[in-house]
Amino acid sequence: MMTFKELLEKRRAIRDFQDKKVPQNILEEILQESTLAPSASNDQPCRFSVVNCKNTMKALSDESKANLLDDFVNKKTSLSSNYVDVLKDKNFNVFYNAPCVIYISGSTRVGSLDWDCALAASYIMFGAVERGLGTCWVHLGSYIRDPQSKALLGIPDGCRIVAPIIIGYPKEIPAASERHVPQILKVIS
Amino acid sequence: MMTFKELLEKRRAIRDFQDKKVPQNILEEILQESTLAPSASNDQPCRFSVVNCKNTMKALSDESKANLLDDFVNKKTSLSSNYVDVLKDKNFNVFYNAPCVIYISGSTRVGSLDWDCALAASYIMFGAVERGLGTCWVHLGSYIRDPQSKALLGIPDGCRIVAPIIIGYPKEIPAASERHVPQILKVIS
Repeated sequence: MMTFKELLEKRRAIRDFQDKKVPQNILEEILQESTLAPSASNDQPCRFSVVNCKNTMKALSDESKANLLDDFVNKKTSLSSNYVDVLKDKNFNVFYNAPCVIYISGSTRVGSLDWDCALAASYIMFGAVERGLGTCWVHLGSYIRDPQSKALLGIPDGCRIVAPIIIGYPKEIPAASERHVPQILKVIS
Repeated sequence: MMTFKELLEKRRAIRDFQDKKVPQNILEEILQESTLAPSASNDQPCRFSVVNCKNTMKALSDESKANLLDDFVNKKTSLSSNYVDVLKDKNFNVFYNAPCVIYISGSTRVGSLDWDCALAASYIMFGAVERGLGTCWVHLGSYIRDPQSKALLGIPDGCRIVAPIIIGYPKEIPAASERHVPQILKVIS
């Protein structure tokens, strides 16, 4: 088992994966561990949809890209021109070549949903590192609105997707991206 | 150093602390580690304010409670009647008897701020466990609006508080709160 230091050092955003499935029992172990994440009032609002099928992932990628571009055209969101070009590229898959994506979703009635899902996401990311897997939170994959797609993912009405996390065995571990020192605004003693 | 399994098992929401300061170098180590948390586009928007003074914490607790009650009275938020009673109790300190609170804040212009700060918060919580410390994310402490209070915390205009995390040496480790099994809506293979 890895130490915390190893987990910290080894976690990366992974966007290139081996052509190898993630065993279902490993995914379930990771999701089981993620239930230990704290949530506001221990409400445990996180729900999970696991997609292991690359064709389905491609279709979800296409829908998410199209919806995000629609939002841009309708001025519901801003996007840099680089991003617009990438989203218009039919060959660009927001999930890269990952073998699996885990959607974390939950009820829109839960005020703390974004925080609760992000905390669960961090547990999933660490749990993946622990098992030699890599992850990336792919926000671009979250724009799923078609009722049929949501039904396919088992996401009920009144729930929204917070975090699509791709997961798989990394082809290689990229260099750590740069970090600035902690931005401490004030220490009051 | 603890293994991931130990970290998972030992992390609790801690609300009762020993009367013992957290050394500044330990806090800095934990904040340094938290910079390794992922953030959207590696934007690293998290900012930290550290309050080690119980009088200041009491004043911030009082302000936060008053603002939240104001929001309730003005129908900007809903609260259960139990909560209202607790908030009206002058002796209730949202930070309990913690020796320290770390405020995580960031620019309102960052669309992913809630997720980015929650991910950093999870690193802080694990980093605390690793060092025998306990934490609790105290949302009730986040309703700080007085420009003087924000200035005291070094939080610039255009920034908002996401996560106040209390931290200190636990008086005791409470039993683990119950968790349900992971709520897996669908597995698509």
